[in-house]
Amino acid sequence: MNLNQSLVHEIVARALAEDVGSGDLTTMAVIPAAAQAAAQFVFREPGVVAGLPVVAAVFAGVDPALECEIQQPEGTQVAAGTSVAVVRGPARGLLIGERVALNLLQRMSGIATVTRRYVDTIVGTQARILDTRKTTPGLRALEKYAVRVGGALNHRFGLYDGVMLKDNHLAILAASGVDMPGAVRLARASVGPMVTVEVEVESVVDAAAAAAAGADMILLDNMPPAQLREAVAAIAGRARTEASGGITLQTLRAVAESGVDYISVGALTHSARALDIGLDSL
Amino acid sequence: MNLNQSLVHEIVARALAEDVGSGDLTTMAVIPAAAQAAAQFVFREPGVVAGLPVVAAVFAGVDPALECEIQQPEGTQVAAGTSVAVVRGPARGLLIGERVALNLLQRMSGIATVTRRYVDTIVGTQARILDTRKTTPGLRALEKYAVRVGGALNHRFGLYDGVMLKDNHLAILAASGVDMPGAVRLARASVGPMVTVEVEVESVVDAAAAAAAGADMILLDNMPPAQLREAVAAIAGRARTEASGGITLQTLRAVAESGVDYISVGALTHSARALDIGLDSL
Amino acid sequence: MNLNQSLVHEIVARALAEDVGSGDLTTMAVIPAAAQAAAQFVFREPGVVAGLPVVAAVFAGVDPALECEIQQPEGTQVAAGTSVAVVRGPARGLLIGERVALNLLQRMSGIATVTRRYVDTIVGTQARILDTRKTTPGLRALEKYAVRVGGALNHRFGLYDGVMLKDNHLAILAASGVDMPGAVRLARASVGPMVTVEVEVESVVDAAAAAAAGADMILLDNMPPAQLREAVAAIAGRARTEASGGITLQTLRAVAESGVDYISVGALTHSARALDIGLDSL
Amino acid sequence: MNLNQSLVHEIVARALAEDVGSGDLTTMAVIPAAAQAAAQFVFREPGVVAGLPVVAAVFAGVDPALECEIQQPEGTQVAAGTSVAVVRGPARGLLIGERVALNLLQRMSGIATVTRRYVDTIVGTQARILDTRKTTPGLRALEKYAVRVGGALNHRFGLYDGVMLKDNHLAILAASGVDMPGAVRLARASVGPMVTVEVEVESVVDAAAAAAAGADMILLDNMPPAQLREAVAAIAGRARTEASGGITLQTLRAVAESGVDYISVGALTHSARALDIGLDSL
Amino acid sequence: MNLNQSLVHEIVARALAEDVGSGDLTTMAVIPAAAQAAAQFVFREPGVVAGLPVVAAVFAGVDPALECEIQQPEGTQVAAGTSVAVVRGPARGLLIGERVALNLLQRMSGIATVTRRYVDTIVGTQARILDTRKTTPGLRALEKYAVRVGGALNHRFGLYDGVMLKDNHLAILAASGVDMPGAVRLARASVGPMVTVEVEVESVVDAAAAAAAGADMILLDNMPPAQLREAVAAIAGRARTEASGGITLQTLRAVAESGVDYISVGALTHSARALDIGLDSL
Amino acid sequence: MNLNQSLVHEIVARALAEDVGSGDLTTMAVIPAAAQAAAQFVFREPGVVAGLPVVAAVFAGVDPALECEIQQPEGTQVAAGTSVAVVRGPARGLLIGERVALNLLQRMSGIATVTRRYVDTIVGTQARILDTRKTTPGLRALEKYAVRVGGALNHRFGLYDGVMLKDNHLAILAASGVDMPGAVRLARASVGPMVTVEVEVESVVDAAAAAAAGADMILLDNMPPAQLREAVAAIAGRARTEASGGITLQTLRAVAESGVDYISVGALTHSARALDIGLDSL
Repeated sequence: MNLNQSLVHEIVARALAEDVGSGDLTTMAVIPAAAQAAAQFVFREPGVVAGLPVVAAVFAGVDPALECEIQQPEGTQVAAGTSVAVVRGPARGLLIGERVALNLLQRMSGIATVTRRYVDTIVGTQARILDTRKTTPGLRALEKYAVRVGGALNHRFGLYDGVMLKDNHLAILAASGVDMPGAVRLARASVGPMVTVEVEVESVVDAAAAAAAGADMILLDNMPPAQLREAVAAIAGRARTEASGGITLQTLRAVAESGVDYISVGALTHSARALDIGLDSL
Repeated sequence: MNLNQSLVHEIVARALAEDVGSGDLTTMAVIPAAAQAAAQFVFREPGVVAGLPVVAAVFAGVDPALECEIQQPEGTQVAAGTSVAVVRGPARGLLIGERVALNLLQRMSGIATVTRRYVDTIVGTQARILDTRKTTPGLRALEKYAVRVGGALNHRFGLYDGVMLKDNHLAILAASGVDMPGAVRLARASVGPMVTVEVEVESVVDAAAAAAAGADMILLDNMPPAQLREAVAAIAGRARTEASGGITLQTLRAVAESGVDYISVGALTHSARALDIGLDSL
Repeated sequence: MNLNQSLVHEIVARALAEDVGSGDLTTMAVIPAAAQAAAQFVFREPGVVAGLPVVAAVFAGVDPALECEIQQPEGTQVAAGTSVAVVRGPARGLLIGERVALNLLQRMSGIATVTRRYVDTIVGTQARILDTRKTTPGLRALEKYAVRVGGALNHRFGLYDGVMLKDNHLAILAASGVDMPGAVRLARASVGPMVTVEVEVESVVDAAAAAAAGADMILLDNMPPAQLREAVAAIAGRARTEASGGITLQTLRAVAESGVDYISVGALTHSARALDIGLDSL
Repeated sequence: MNLNQSLVHEIVARALAEDVGSGDLTTMAVIPAAAQAAAQFVFREPGVVAGLPVVAAVFAGVDPALECEIQQPEGTQVAAGTSVAVVRGPARGLLIGERVALNLLQRMSGIATVTRRYVDTIVGTQARILDTRKTTPGLRALEKYAVRVGGALNHRFGLYDGVMLKDNHLAILAASGVDMPGAVRLARASVGPMVTVEVEVESVVDAAAAAAAGADMILLDNMPPAQLREAVAAIAGRARTEASGGITLQTLRAVAESGVDYISVGALTHSARALDIGLDSL
Repeated sequence: MNLNQSLVHEIVARALAEDVGSGDLTTMAVIPAAAQAAAQFVFREPGVVAGLPVVAAVFAGVDPALECEIQQPEGTQVAAGTSVAVVRGPARGLLIGERVALNLLQRMSGIATVTRRYVDTIVGTQARILDTRKTTPGLRALEKYAVRVGGALNHRFGLYDGVMLKDNHLAILAASGVDMPGAVRLARASVGPMVTVEVEVESVVDAAAAAAAGADMILLDNMPPAQLREAVAAIAGRARTEASGGITLQTLRAVAESGVDYISVGALTHSARALDIGLDSL
Repeated sequence: MNLNQSLVHEIVARALAEDVGSGDLTTMAVIPAAAQAAAQFVFREPGVVAGLPVVAAVFAGVDPALECEIQQPEGTQVAAGTSVAVVRGPARGLLIGERVALNLLQRMSGIATVTRRYVDTIVGTQARILDTRKTTPGLRALEKYAVRVGGALNHRFGLYDGVMLKDNHLAILAASGVDMPGAVRLARASVGPMVTVEVEVESVVDAAAAAAAGADMILLDNMPPAQLREAVAAIAGRARTEASGGITLQTLRAVAESGVDYISVGALTHSARALDIGLDSL
């Protein structure tokens, strides 16, 4: 899995601590320590598989004696009724890990599934789908991974790995007499060469000015396709272009065909529905 | 706020660490340390306010010099366009905390809003809405709080504060010759008197047997209203009753009118959409 | 062991960090890395064995090459002179873990031993012994486990898994015009159905009123056996009953014979003496 | 307080997390956020006060708005009925912190009280009482502080701040041909000059040999007073002397009068009873 | 300070825990709790000031009653004998924090001082000095900040905020038939648009090929100035250029005059000497 | 390795978290998960090997499938060009761990190398080299270990394992009327018998007074060899002696020949240069 294993373990340990707390009263009360069990994760609706290595980490975190067999590679589009993984071993551990595993798998597969839908919609254009920082606090690494599994690319991971001059920054700078191109130049001079500087603009004129000021990437905010086309032309390859704001599955393809390089979609993560997946006893 | 402040601080600190990492490159590059700013949180769609004390904790966590004025009490239903809080102070801190604050507020208000819709639908019946453990890993405390703000009650918080014998437990016990009433009696004898024992049943006959075996609460799984009514009659006040499974806003009122005490709804948390809320400069 | 393994590891890791700090100067100075050793844990006085899985976790935490063989199941009453476990492997690790292992085993077996004494005293009555929250800060999970090993049941684990209206709560509520039955009704309406509501009363009249108000459990504070009998009669099965306050081994049986369901004893944990157990070289 | 404040905060935070968990259901359910209260800590039996600054840290950790007024300095011997501290402020916080504060104060004052008894018993001799590492895992810093408050001195804090060659070390070294004086010389040469090297001996001959080998301190294990006297004479001021093993309040004075410098007593910490202290509403 | 305050607090807390451990024996033994003191930080050799806000955080972490007055702004070049900050307050806290404060200030000012020397050497050229990841584990944030204070820019902060294809990566890829330009194209297609892709090359031909393949930045490894000049010409503005490897203060200016954009210097951090700074009583 | 493994794991985990963050973009982008690799650590200059077990812990922390073969025992003096360890396994893990492993190995071997130089300089005298607390915050355990590997002894580890009355302490005490011998007596009476009391003196007269007052160890500050000789004579074996302050490799032997027991050198740790060590593909 293209994912930092330490982060996975940290998230899983925290999730288990949250759910198990001082101990699972039910299994301690009624399930014999020696009881064995097996169960399979079954998609109850069609979707893209994402998160099975995290599921495996959950059960390993509960009891190393549990074995988790992954049946479908990450990123596979499966039909309703498909079993994607089997877990076998001590019944107590299986029951203890069930809910945390499902909560993570349903969320991650939900994100991968909606991402795939966006990606498929613009097939054949030059544009790529991007995510945003509108992720669940504490789960960003998993959610951005699910976006990659779904076929899109990640925008920056946080405030620490890229400069993004947004309207709020520009408003504050304007108050001290620094205009947008000045802000771009200031940022470019202040940060190291591995840092990409992006700026948000709302007009074609500003797009051209941002490119001239040396922005590496320009966010074209809330522009209809025709205006995007003009902005892309005005930028003329001097910077990467990103369309953002109010884009739906309905308007997506037109946006992509405007010639922008990237389209960022907050809905990939901030409103993805948990996919319906169950854990059925074997 | 009826919420453990230590947990809030822990969640907020983790969320900020995730987003800020080694530092906010943008504000460090262009925003003067002395710049001041103010902004307000505005609902862009109608909804129930939940999470403003958490928003305040976010800004306090970024910079104690930021002041957060809460304008609407938790639980208020507000119209689109309503400003619910204002934050004022050092511009850097305001910009650093913005995304984490919005991510939390949108999610919490989203949950409170959908919860309120369920609660309003059964007004006038004796039934109460419950949440489930289908929450976001790491954010359960905040999400269960948002459910309370929305007007529903919390089911158990985790595996540690209640016994719940579900189909998977009963299947494993059946394999070793323990039937459902036996499982209820075993659980009741094993746990202390402050622990509530609930069992999941799928038939009226089992509902009656569970009550006879001493269950404190009985989950009536996936029953249509008519069957629920029979089950409630069979239990005859010997245990609290909970309807669960496949209940939608459409079927909810009929379920409530069957006479069950509680109706649990996973969708309150597992699929709540982030509410559209913005942070507008003042 | 009916105990959350993550909590055990956390407690053990903290205990080792506290004792080992920047390193065991003695073993580093004089014990060769290759030296092997073996030793057995011997009860120097009769008692009930509790904590051997924790001892095993201590040595595993020091050096995975150490093997810990458990010779007596948890809960066994053993005579003075009995060896209950053997540990074998690298001498350094054995010496490093010795004190932490003994400190935990002595405390846990001490609690199990005194608990067993209380439990045995009321054999044949319907009453069950309960512990309290008067535990050692940081070790509650281990101490409540030792109580279970000793044969008693656990009262609530903390403030989070049960409502308990004590005299201090009632005094504060009284000041704002809420009487005891009102407090019970308020609590019952505010919390979810998995939460048990207990209230403390000091008279038979209040006991009856608490039952009428819907309390799930009633703590009968500091009542002599005759008064307990009256209170139990007045409650008439509408709530679980708990006797508490000033009960000693001398008065215990009379209390149990009053008909109460539960008797809680702070002394199980707050003043249990460490049992005399040694680690003898083999 | 002669105690590392960071450690106090860490212990207090952990204790509160253990007790409060996902939140205090009782206060959230029935106590209004605005309610105020006051209460005093009252000794129900005579004892030595230890732990009030920790009590203050508990309430500060629950709610900074709580004020804790300390009425008796640490180390004061008070009579039954004495109020030693008052806490005032938001009622919720007072109720949330009560049990953790009492658990810590009762344990610490219990240790200080028993320590004072040992110290008083040998008044007028040259000997000083020492504690051991037989402390509660996780609370060593607080317990060793309570020993100091009681008037005794601390032995080493852990394996990291002193060399102690005990019987188990010597047995392992003997197997590889290193005798006790050899072990002392090896240790002395291996560690830096700030590290004190102590060795355990069981005979007068060995005591003399240990002193000759350069031990800084010699533990005279399980010797009756007459033998102690001989050992002290044989050591002749070349090393500090410590009597240890099976010493009770009955035998203590005779041991002290043998001329040893220090007497270590595990019972100060491993079996101190929680002192009976209550928190009474004002 | 352009530095994430949370990271500062984390590093400071860890450093204090490491040094103070179970408590400062010396101050507890001899310094009265009420004693007050004041002292000043004095440069004993000329240098660039870096780290005073961290020093302030150290004393705040020890005792909030300590006041730290900063006398010289970060980045000031001061002469030997200059007092740069004064700390006043409880003597115990001042003594406890002294060593940690000095250890951090000496290291940070040492880095800023050597960085300034490199920066000054190439004044008037277009080149900028960069640091590397050759930093002290656990202190990277502070050391990269000190580099900025010294006047240089930061290269990437870690493996997470930039792609760098080094010789070891290229060797492994070559084994599976992927050449350097192929690696650049693969990386560019796999990562999001905010990620800069840099590749290490050792010849002018490869430099041109890397630029043609779409590298954003090209590391010219171990090239003498003449070859650098050729490489820069071959790249022709299609990518940022970085000279690296074996560059000393002696060769630095010639390298800068070759026309490269950036020069990275591991020695800024991996071998900076602690500056001689003392804390003198006032 | 004579080093607390838990501390090693903690330091290594933190270092990896710092460098890897949300994931290694480069290996995820271009290195196949199945690719294998091998590389060796080669000294590019002569030096003393220290830190290979830490290197092994780094790779184990990245991926347990990586194997690290140590070719040279800790403390070996090796020539330039010597391979000291080989690491083999999944290429991704090898590339991810490389920089952290090198940063630690270079620093630790640098310290061991400079320490060995000091130790060799005084061969044949009775004096031993000591380190100080002038270590890198967060890495003290590793740096003090490297000092031991280099052949010197450790001074105290922190403020918690020894009393050291320095000029700043004495100045504060003088202000309240306690002179140096009084301070020594106060300290000696306040701390337990395992604690060594050292005092700093600047004259022969004070040295004699310190010894008379019962100091266990006396730091002779900044004295030339002749004065040291006098001080040693005046102390006359009543305390251990330590020379400190302004000692260089040039003056070291003369200092040692003055008869002092120990010579402490801050430069062992505060200014040790990272040794030039590379990781070469195999």
